[in-house]
Amino acid sequence: MSSSSASQVLPEKQNQQVERILKARNDEYGGVMVEMTNEPMEAGVFLCLLRASLSHWRQQGKNGVWIKMPIELANLVEPAVKEGFYYHHAEPKYIMLVHWLPSIANTLPASASHRVGIGAFVVNEKNEVLVVQEKNGKFRGTDVWKLPTGVVDEGEDICDAVVREVKEETGIDSKFLEILAFRQSHKSFFDKSDLFFVCMMKPLSFDIKPQEAEIEAAQWMPYEEYAAQPFVQKHELLRYVADVCRAKKDGVYSGFSAVPTETSFSKKKSYLYLNSKDVDF
Amino acid sequence: MSSSSASQVLPEKQNQQVERILKARNDEYGGVMVEMTNEPMEAGVFLCLLRASLSHWRQQGKNGVWIKMPIELANLVEPAVKEGFYYHHAEPKYIMLVHWLPSIANTLPASASHRVGIGAFVVNEKNEVLVVQEKNGKFRGTDVWKLPTGVVDEGEDICDAVVREVKEETGIDSKFLEILAFRQSHKSFFDKSDLFFVCMMKPLSFDIKPQEAEIEAAQWMPYEEYAAQPFVQKHELLRYVADVCRAKKDGVYSGFSAVPTETSFSKKKSYLYLNSKDVDF
Repeated sequence: MSSSSASQVLPEKQNQQVERILKARNDEYGGVMVEMTNEPMEAGVFLCLLRASLSHWRQQGKNGVWIKMPIELANLVEPAVKEGFYYHHAEPKYIMLVHWLPSIANTLPASASHRVGIGAFVVNEKNEVLVVQEKNGKFRGTDVWKLPTGVVDEGEDICDAVVREVKEETGIDSKFLEILAFRQSHKSFFDKSDLFFVCMMKPLSFDIKPQEAEIEAAQWMPYEEYAAQPFVQKHELLRYVADVCRAKKDGVYSGFSAVPTETSFSKKKSYLYLNSKDVDF
Repeated sequence: MSSSSASQVLPEKQNQQVERILKARNDEYGGVMVEMTNEPMEAGVFLCLLRASLSHWRQQGKNGVWIKMPIELANLVEPAVKEGFYYHHAEPKYIMLVHWLPSIANTLPASASHRVGIGAFVVNEKNEVLVVQEKNGKFRGTDVWKLPTGVVDEGEDICDAVVREVKEETGIDSKFLEILAFRQSHKSFFDKSDLFFVCMMKPLSFDIKPQEAEIEAAQWMPYEEYAAQPFVQKHELLRYVADVCRAKKDGVYSGFSAVPTETSFSKKKSYLYLNSKDVDF
């Protein structure tokens, strides 16, 4: 298809001339969003369209201009940057470019700053904890047994992510009960931060099938043996977590459970995590 | 400076010939990281260097190849993509490109997926809550009084961010006591998720000075009047939060307090948030 196809370009009547500008939709904050399709476009063609569009949006008093640029159009990143755009965020398949037009201070939102991880404390009725040895990472080749851990996927609830990770790593079905504690750490990968939630889980099955790609071994281990490992005792953080897990296991600790809620602003269901033992709704 | 300056290019002896490749350092996961300086480089020069480098790293059995590309070198994004790189993440001043070389499955870490926000529940001894009306956003021009809120900066601890936001928006000094509850929501901006922490704060000063740029008005408001607002009662989530805040104010609720911890893996201090009423260290 031609680079000036209807999907990218919107003809608009202005001063009795037909001007071609980039197709954009208004956002809620007085700005516009351009979502480029991945049809090829020459840099020169794009530059003309972009300049005409910016002039049009300036006349309209627009604030932020966003361009979601698929990776197939990597050739258009440079011309956009030359016209004053900068990077907002990127995902494997696109980069989001942004340009703040007004002379007043930029109120554009920051990008995502945290990765979210989970650790699962799964205890059976024999007071045994589900533990794994990983094939990769810091503890590869050591005899350290650790709780199953993982990263929360984009758009995934913490209480679902932990069920998924336990199943993937060990084959065990489990039910989310509570968040026992969480840790915030910084510069954990590049300049980004990390939130790591330790979750109390109830096992619903007992036969372990370790995941071939990532898990060297998995087992049910007596809690005291888990907590007594030198690597747990040596690290203040892990020792605290083990203490919290013991308190929960012994029935003397309240973490945060997950309450599904709705707000009419967003119509989306989202979980509120709170100490439901201490409050009645 | 020339595009083949020493800072970008490392001469290496190989097969008795001098080959020029991109300067890279090894990472902990069997990969390499190239940090480009922002000296201009022609796309053709970069492409030659990149191809020689990739061939060298393949021979060395490297896994992930990372290129941190400053925005000044936007012209080099396209050649990198053509050689098989894709986008990992981006910040205003750079884009991180990545290429997984081996034939085995990609184990590269995901990018940041969440933005982190805070809301402050600041109550004085007269049972009054610190509330604000914002100049921008959803509630502009309404008579809704809400808790001060804000976004946690990159590298900032939640318990510090909430003190900073209360000070910026209202001029009030305060002390972090506990996280009362938190909410996880999805697709809150583009495809990213959001974690929002409601924090109990003790006021350390009482004279309000609203922030000129963002805050229309701020005041101490009787708690019952805050909670009775139709916008609080109408939204399940806000009603729950108001109930938790009431329980805390009345001394019958335990949230998570912040315990500073160290781990010897990282040497960095990080906060563990947990119910310290239920556990002794």
